[in-house]
Amino acid sequence: MLVTDLINVRYLSGFTGSNGALLVFADDRGPLLATDGRYRTQAAEQAPDLEVAIERALGRHLVGRAADAGVGKLGFESNVVTVDGFDTLTSELAERNAGTELVRAAGTVEALREIKDDGELALLRLACEKADDALRDLVERGGLRPGRTEREVSRELEALMLDHGADAISFETIVAAGPNSAIPHHRPTDAVLANGDFVKIDFGALVAGYHSDMTRTFVLGKAADWQLEIYQLVSDAQRAGREALRPGAGLRDVDGAARQLIVDAGYGDQFSHGLGHGVGLQIHEAPGIGATSSGTLLAGSVVTVEPGVYLPGRGGVRIEDTLAVADETSTPELLTRFPKELAVLT
Amino acid sequence: MLVTDLINVRYLSGFTGSNGALLVFADDRGPLLATDGRYRTQAAEQAPDLEVAIERALGRHLVGRAADAGVGKLGFESNVVTVDGFDTLTSELAERNAGTELVRAAGTVEALREIKDDGELALLRLACEKADDALRDLVERGGLRPGRTEREVSRELEALMLDHGADAISFETIVAAGPNSAIPHHRPTDAVLANGDFVKIDFGALVAGYHSDMTRTFVLGKAADWQLEIYQLVSDAQRAGREALRPGAGLRDVDGAARQLIVDAGYGDQFSHGLGHGVGLQIHEAPGIGATSSGTLLAGSVVTVEPGVYLPGRGGVRIEDTLAVADETSTPELLTRFPKELAVLT
Repeated sequence: MLVTDLINVRYLSGFTGSNGALLVFADDRGPLLATDGRYRTQAAEQAPDLEVAIERALGRHLVGRAADAGVGKLGFESNVVTVDGFDTLTSELAERNAGTELVRAAGTVEALREIKDDGELALLRLACEKADDALRDLVERGGLRPGRTEREVSRELEALMLDHGADAISFETIVAAGPNSAIPHHRPTDAVLANGDFVKIDFGALVAGYHSDMTRTFVLGKAADWQLEIYQLVSDAQRAGREALRPGAGLRDVDGAARQLIVDAGYGDQFSHGLGHGVGLQIHEAPGIGATSSGTLLAGSVVTVEPGVYLPGRGGVRIEDTLAVADETSTPELLTRFPKELAVLT
Repeated sequence: MLVTDLINVRYLSGFTGSNGALLVFADDRGPLLATDGRYRTQAAEQAPDLEVAIERALGRHLVGRAADAGVGKLGFESNVVTVDGFDTLTSELAERNAGTELVRAAGTVEALREIKDDGELALLRLACEKADDALRDLVERGGLRPGRTEREVSRELEALMLDHGADAISFETIVAAGPNSAIPHHRPTDAVLANGDFVKIDFGALVAGYHSDMTRTFVLGKAADWQLEIYQLVSDAQRAGREALRPGAGLRDVDGAARQLIVDAGYGDQFSHGLGHGVGLQIHEAPGIGATSSGTLLAGSVVTVEPGVYLPGRGGVRIEDTLAVADETSTPELLTRFPKELAVLT
């Protein structure tokens, strides 16, 4: 199989450069890693057991090597290879008059990645822990208070994650105050936090390539009745979603377990996204947990549960955890442990 | 044309969400922006003049709309659309028995983006200025000294860019000390800076979506003869590259102008990457300036010039500027202004 997705290349080989591709054989021939001259040293260090080819046209080179090796069927990532990229591969084979046939193998490596091994789980646990620690520090030192800007809060939280040993942030931190909290994916601005605001914070830490993902929503000062109402609703829905996590559960049913509460309360249209997603070497990976998802939840997967209700112009609440789905006899392991009770910061 | 590349969607519409696609008509019918429910509010704010469709399957929806509108030829980004994505588009058209034909239009928007307008140039200038300011501050406050780790230096430099008003960093900062400086793209580690080290720093600031890109290499303590030799060589090559920047120049010739000096000095194999690349809404965009590039440099383009010589196990030097190519009568505008003379930090 020709693997060109960079995350999949990393997963299989350990190579983290920004340009690389892998040829993996079904038999005991060793895999071949191709990259460019910038990564000669790094490839040798990160993938010491692999043969490394330094080339300009990686896919073309590896398809040629597969043809040379007499490969009959060569899988390729049809969910990653572009229409133009596919032309390059087929023209290389045509030029060589090779008998190698390209076959679609979309999602093959992604499916392997869905089940985390113990080493991966340890890194995910660590990434979540660093996010927990950073948010706790931020709250304890009074970092969430009226007068600060979204941007200031976001910078401090990110610095705290690095202080706690995160390699980097896991994705662009969301700090959304007041009406901005009604924007599910809001970038921090110079908007000033004010009394009565919801402050929604969605963020994560990166540890050795593994991401954490957590959302908490706070209230500054006294919570209004409408705020208490939607916070309680989202909190109930989130618990229902967590409780629906078990191996074999339909992904759509997990989404539905949380969504139904929100629909019943009349806020179905205000929960405008899926319930969750897998987390690992990517912040969003398989499985997707949404109203139109097919398939079931696997033992060993790590997923988020993150319902939200967003009232445009007023504010919104999202509560998100990352959890590891264990076997059928165990409850999922909660990786993001920061408390979820409504914290009213005064 | 169906535009699915997110940067191109942003360039044409102003919408910055992580999921969006655009249908643009050749006549005066207004463009149509499709995104998902998470971005309903943001799309309305960022693209107030566009019709916005909230959908799950963006490409499928927009192809359907094109068919409904009686479009005969629909361009698509064959350098972006995957093999599976293309299947989705064609099957949607087949289901509708539509007479719409999909035609390849790779790089159409990227070609527009290659020539920066005044507003874009102003943002690029600002992004480069913030990187200059941050590096100056770092050096002035003694941030580059034996005993610190690569990671500490990188964090301080990144914080300084944000202090100076950058929205974010432009890419993962490279701080590479001693032998690590021989790795062209090295991630900061806990390696400690020591006397006699080359310290190579490649970094940039992001302002309103526009990137800056600059590399400087320092020596800690007294420079050894081999260090002086390769620094001077790279410096001469970089000047030659900058002086070769003029509209109409062959991209390969610009690369050659710098590369020839390094080859003549016997270090051709140690300059293992292209000379430069365009910079804008992406850190790497058209044009690529390398030994195998075709095409010519355009007036209004903004590019890097970044030769390097890397001696595995010992150390490496790269010197990189970002420059705006003006018309034929003007010399390029140097956007990254931090000094390039070898700074020996004691």
